[in-house]
Amino acid sequence: MNSRVITGITTSGTLHLGNYAGAIRPAIQASLGSNVDSFFFLADYHALIKNQNPIRLLKSRMEIAAAWLAAGLDTDRVIFYRQSDIPEVLELSWILTCITSKGLMNRAHAYKSMTNQNLTKRIDIDDGITMGLFSYPILMAADILIFKANKVPVGQDQIQHLEMARDIAQRFNHTYKNNFFVLPEAVVAKNVATLPGLDGRKMSKSYNNTIPIFDDETRTLKSSIMKIITDSSQLNDPKNADESHIYLLYRAFSNENESESFKLKLNNGLAWGEAKKILYDKIEHELAPIREKYKKLIKDPEYIEKILTFGCFKARKIIKPIIEEIRDLIGIRNLEKVTLNNKEKLFNYKSSRKSRFLIYKDIEDKFKFRLISSDGTELIISNSLFNNPNEIISLLKKIKLDLINNIKNVDFDYISLLRLHSIEISDQYSKFGSDKDKIFLSKLIALLDSIKI
Amino acid sequence: MNSRVITGITTSGTLHLGNYAGAIRPAIQASLGSNVDSFFFLADYHALIKNQNPIRLLKSRMEIAAAWLAAGLDTDRVIFYRQSDIPEVLELSWILTCITSKGLMNRAHAYKSMTNQNLTKRIDIDDGITMGLFSYPILMAADILIFKANKVPVGQDQIQHLEMARDIAQRFNHTYKNNFFVLPEAVVAKNVATLPGLDGRKMSKSYNNTIPIFDDETRTLKSSIMKIITDSSQLNDPKNADESHIYLLYRAFSNENESESFKLKLNNGLAWGEAKKILYDKIEHELAPIREKYKKLIKDPEYIEKILTFGCFKARKIIKPIIEEIRDLIGIRNLEKVTLNNKEKLFNYKSSRKSRFLIYKDIEDKFKFRLISSDGTELIISNSLFNNPNEIISLLKKIKLDLINNIKNVDFDYISLLRLHSIEISDQYSKFGSDKDKIFLSKLIALLDSIKI
Repeated sequence: MNSRVITGITTSGTLHLGNYAGAIRPAIQASLGSNVDSFFFLADYHALIKNQNPIRLLKSRMEIAAAWLAAGLDTDRVIFYRQSDIPEVLELSWILTCITSKGLMNRAHAYKSMTNQNLTKRIDIDDGITMGLFSYPILMAADILIFKANKVPVGQDQIQHLEMARDIAQRFNHTYKNNFFVLPEAVVAKNVATLPGLDGRKMSKSYNNTIPIFDDETRTLKSSIMKIITDSSQLNDPKNADESHIYLLYRAFSNENESESFKLKLNNGLAWGEAKKILYDKIEHELAPIREKYKKLIKDPEYIEKILTFGCFKARKIIKPIIEEIRDLIGIRNLEKVTLNNKEKLFNYKSSRKSRFLIYKDIEDKFKFRLISSDGTELIISNSLFNNPNEIISLLKKIKLDLINNIKNVDFDYISLLRLHSIEISDQYSKFGSDKDKIFLSKLIALLDSIKI
Repeated sequence: MNSRVITGITTSGTLHLGNYAGAIRPAIQASLGSNVDSFFFLADYHALIKNQNPIRLLKSRMEIAAAWLAAGLDTDRVIFYRQSDIPEVLELSWILTCITSKGLMNRAHAYKSMTNQNLTKRIDIDDGITMGLFSYPILMAADILIFKANKVPVGQDQIQHLEMARDIAQRFNHTYKNNFFVLPEAVVAKNVATLPGLDGRKMSKSYNNTIPIFDDETRTLKSSIMKIITDSSQLNDPKNADESHIYLLYRAFSNENESESFKLKLNNGLAWGEAKKILYDKIEHELAPIREKYKKLIKDPEYIEKILTFGCFKARKIIKPIIEEIRDLIGIRNLEKVTLNNKEKLFNYKSSRKSRFLIYKDIEDKFKFRLISSDGTELIISNSLFNNPNEIISLLKKIKLDLINNIKNVDFDYISLLRLHSIEISDQYSKFGSDKDKIFLSKLIALLDSIKI
């Protein structure tokens, strides 16, 4: 079996060149490897913990999705979805919550560092700490375990949370079924390109020294590069490439030959202004097409939504058998499954024996049908003509399957489904959306059951 | 607007006469009142906190659902559903988790009483405490707030949890939108029939003094009643009715006249053995039909499942607009909504301009159609004959709607939907379940969009 690699993408803030070279580009490259099934998700329900500004959250989700797509995430190949689109993740999160000891969460570094700050300030130990922050590692475990993913690329700060995911998985396995969950492994990236920022320190929002990937109102790639701080070497002085941020940045965007040649030029006294232009051209060459795509995407939220919706569809196909087995294991299975061999038909209890299914000949030797409920009311009547009774049976079989499959789906418009087949619903049931829905549907399914189609 | 009253039903253990007279019967009676919309739910994801025995959980869910139905819960009138069927409850629970301060949970009585026990034992304060137990009040808040319910019948031990639900609702309102959530009110039942058990203490599982509602292998209603402890009065001695458990039990199942007459008989020296028979007849009269129904129901889990499924359907219809507004408020809305006025069509970005929609005349002046994707591959072809092109357009409109409405529904079988209309899928896309799903669907919807139906 292929490795399943899952990567959560934080949906907060704005991306900079350091994120691009250190996270986005290598992750996308890794997803192209063979024997790998890659899952990327926008972790918007994690973002909610710290971000209670809805406009910022919404904007960030869109920008970050657009950036990853523009950078070349191949959504035919990987599964790219949004955490908040997958209800099974929060369901599993609750299931895991029930078996996770509170003591485990007490030991999380992120939580402890906040309580330590509070202790130093001599205020309540839990001051300003939400349950979201405290429970965060459980949701992260659910994100991973729901796919039985076995590899999780993480930064140093996430290693402990991944250990917790393993602990929680083991606890589940121990409680319910040995070896059910794969224990996920942390993949700590080596040789991550850590880019220097404008001032030479690590590029980071907290140092306010970032170079943007996508231009905004105040800064462009060019204007930012021109602001990189250089040493005080004069115009034609030889420059020490290895100590120059400009060279380090250049290297992150070029192959070895190009880097060597750039180094040589610097040593030979290339002026900083010229060097910045060469650096700009190099980065611009890689970013220009990405920026173009990004600009188109960001204007087309409907397209991004569609991409994410397909990701959701693919993700839930994989999740479905897993969550169903989990529900079985914990005792939350559907009652239908209790007696699989139970031959008694649904609704026989409330006898539907007197319900009737009438097939009759109409014009031109063609057939029509009507369904009459046990209480004598006509439920539906067909307007189409059928060549023989078997055609009717086969249509009703399909309708029944559709009704049963979609019964919990609140968006499912079964009235339209019936009309699609030129089946009229009797007047008393035709007002969709009323309380009569339930009665109508129950009668209809009972009837479809009773006629043994 | 009607009051919305919500009642959670614990799905653990087996019901006894005390539960019936003290909880089930009065709740069902209250649901018959006017100006009341009643919601009853099986709190199975709460039960999971304490019950990690799947068979016991499953069995209890079924028995307790059957008991409420047998006791007369009118599921045409009330909404009776299972917590685990409503993904929106766990979604809201997470949303509330993000804004609930940990300090609030630290103060919950149930949690504090456990930590106090641990302190007394001089072991770790959180020993044996799960995150489920700790977070329980948040899930309870979600259960209530998801319907904007305004009345919650609770026992004394739940009053604090309801206060917490109000706190959490206020915090949400303050963060996102004033007055969004109704602040639910606790309705603490007065004059609850507290039945004495076999030994005269309050009937309770923990005292092992219960009388079963439904007979099991070891005990029947009759055998239990015969075991009620009485005082040592002799056969014809006058009995003190007010101090007799038998009288108290009798009173819970009869009207005032009947109670008075029974009291008189006791005062006049009715023998305890006779009194027990009269008591048995009285209770049996009320319970016999319920027991009959229960026996039928418990053999028909599929029927119970169907009832709960309809409850789920009705509940989610009410929840849908509420959760959608919540998602909007917090910034988790669908991106489509970002630009409602965006006239650009989905997928225009990945140009679908060259995709073709062919209608052509077939035999007998009838029409058929084919859809060709932008890359020249044939997607689908119709086998049916249509009288005119408009019939085709109208069919495709319906299919498009169905596809879009059901795109996130993993159970939705769009291949069957197409086949239902005698539309063939081209060979290269006909293998359902493969990765080609996404490509096929995206092309199909792009095409349906591009032809402006």
